Amino acid sequence: MSDPTPLRPGMIVGILGGGQLGRMLAMAAAELGLSCHIYCPDPKSPAFAVAAARTIAPYDDESALAAFAGSVDLVTFEFENIPVDTLRFLEGRVAVFPGSGSLESAQDRLAEKRLVSGLGIPVAPFAEVSKQADIYSALARTGRPAILKTRRLGYDGKGQALIRAGDDPVAAWRAVGETAAILEAHIQFEREVSAIIARGRDGAIRAFDVTENIHEGGILATSTVPAAIPDEIATEAVSIAARIAEAVGHVGVLAVEMFVTAGSTRPRLVVNEIAPRVHNSGHWTSDAALCCQFEQHIRAIAGWPLGDPSRHSDAVMTNLIGQAVERWPSLLSEPDVGLHLYGKSETLPGRKMGHFTRISPRKGG
Amino acid sequence: MSDPTPLRPGMIVGILGGGQLGRMLAMAAAELGLSCHIYCPDPKSPAFAVAAARTIAPYDDESALAAFAGSVDLVTFEFENIPVDTLRFLEGRVAVFPGSGSLESAQDRLAEKRLVSGLGIPVAPFAEVSKQADIYSALARTGRPAILKTRRLGYDGKGQALIRAGDDPVAAWRAVGETAAILEAHIQFEREVSAIIARGRDGAIRAFDVTENIHEGGILATSTVPAAIPDEIATEAVSIAARIAEAVGHVGVLAVEMFVTAGSTRPRLVVNEIAPRVHNSGHWTSDAALCCQFEQHIRAIAGWPLGDPSRHSDAVMTNLIGQAVERWPSLLSEPDVGLHLYGKSETLPGRKMGHFTRISPRKGG
Repeated sequence: MSDPTPLRPGMIVGILGGGQLGRMLAMAAAELGLSCHIYCPDPKSPAFAVAAARTIAPYDDESALAAFAGSVDLVTFEFENIPVDTLRFLEGRVAVFPGSGSLESAQDRLAEKRLVSGLGIPVAPFAEVSKQADIYSALARTGRPAILKTRRLGYDGKGQALIRAGDDPVAAWRAVGETAAILEAHIQFEREVSAIIARGRDGAIRAFDVTENIHEGGILATSTVPAAIPDEIATEAVSIAARIAEAVGHVGVLAVEMFVTAGSTRPRLVVNEIAPRVHNSGHWTSDAALCCQFEQHIRAIAGWPLGDPSRHSDAVMTNLIGQAVERWPSLLSEPDVGLHLYGKSETLPGRKMGHFTRISPRKGG
Repeated sequence: MSDPTPLRPGMIVGILGGGQLGRMLAMAAAELGLSCHIYCPDPKSPAFAVAAARTIAPYDDESALAAFAGSVDLVTFEFENIPVDTLRFLEGRVAVFPGSGSLESAQDRLAEKRLVSGLGIPVAPFAEVSKQADIYSALARTGRPAILKTRRLGYDGKGQALIRAGDDPVAAWRAVGETAAILEAHIQFEREVSAIIARGRDGAIRAFDVTENIHEGGILATSTVPAAIPDEIATEAVSIAARIAEAVGHVGVLAVEMFVTAGSTRPRLVVNEIAPRVHNSGHWTSDAALCCQFEQHIRAIAGWPLGDPSRHSDAVMTNLIGQAVERWPSLLSEPDVGLHLYGKSETLPGRKMGHFTRISPRKGG
């Protein structure tokens, strides 16, 4: 489907995936007068509670997908582990943004690294590991410590194993499941940041302020904005994200996680990961910007003008992971805190149950 | 049901009424991890699209109401024209906030005026008009111009007729439908303001900044915050709203519309109308305060601590009434504008289709 017309209020957005990102996208769409239909295999999907319609079916159920395509005006997705074939099937029937091109490169860590380094953007030294024997030549390329990661279906630090000096590399190969993998040199970084941008159907790009992130155990713990980096590094981070979005013809919000390393003369950015979607490190935008990342994504895919991504406040977003969600009563008592709970029925260790954002008046500009 | 326990995330809030207020309440509840069940007779209710469950039934359908009461953890309402008997029926079965006490006085303009004046709070001179002949004695009490208003079921200027010098009062009586009415003196005012406060189950009160309103044709056109009134008048407006909330044992958000008149020595406040609910003149809070009126209402009825109602920005909210909603494409292009569309399927003259808020950095304090 090429050049679909822009959406009009009252139309229906189909969202693949029913987690918290789908939930927040659905509410943002509703605020703009659109209605949402969530497609997700999990009958307990938290996004169902805020959507006008739902389909509970596997991602490879072609009759369910065809019915879904026929009942919505546009399809988007909330996470990148939707099968590419699902998206291609839908693309034959209805407008899909972002398209399968964005999804494909983000689903495979090796393809992603090749894409980014092919654009002349720094990434960590890396090598393909498709069988156990590859791991030794790969280590020769990356040095130690290095991280072995499955090429597909990894998130929140899952499917990863660190190989330090003295570690048996075969143990790492077993730990990730003896599956197609990529070995990446461990980057010594000063800080982690993410650039969250949106690209419209017309190619227009708007960027939220660059966010500084802290991960704990492979899972995002906090995001702080503004990041403590020089302006020119922030500008470069946004430019990197924009070049990636343009390279894959992305439409919608796209997040690029980067390391800031101590370069010889000035800090240097190294791309770590791409998420072709709204991103946890952009959750602060719901409380500290008039147009949040969820609204921005909806505007982009709808073919509407992108919103003003400027911040009215400084912000620190903290994830509520597993039992940490039990902090909700005390968080409700704190001024300047916006609390967001995802309506998940079961609290599990490592599961993102909610987040909160502490805002404060903008310092400086 | 006395002293119900506070809600916990995952619980279900039942909302009577499925218009835009119910819709925005449902989304605020979802952000706090609650789920919503909308009860409304209108199968096209815009709130259905963002709620986990719906009941389409008349407000006097006792079996539907009993099933609704049995499927939710708490009931609230989005507008005051729900029959009091409906609320009383539910109160026997489930926690209801605000209670029928709040509803009752707000449903009847005469009872409302008596309540407010009984608290020693200024209102316009008024008189009961229960039959045609009453109108002459009533006019003797109020003078002209005066406004004849139906006691019940009026909103957005409906059920009102102005009686000027020379007008035939009987024409006004016919215009409002020859039904139980109240005659109110027309107040010469400098401006209209509203105080929007929340009262928790524990009696705690928090107030949003007083809002200045402009009506056109009896319908709210714009709300501006801060209002151009001295601080002590704003404090008095909040205190008036708090006294009214306390008098009726209100739990939840309550709005009081007031006239600011030119008193002999300083401006004077005269109460015009009470709305025992979230209010159109508080819509700016969604874009200019961390905790909006919808979240505040949910916190209050849930038995949770009230949120911080402070503003991060100045704001002007403009309603999109009838065809004005067609401005949406150009509004999407304006920076500093938050657009909210209600997902109503039909555009009708006088119908509230959406609103937008223009924010700007706080001036002064």
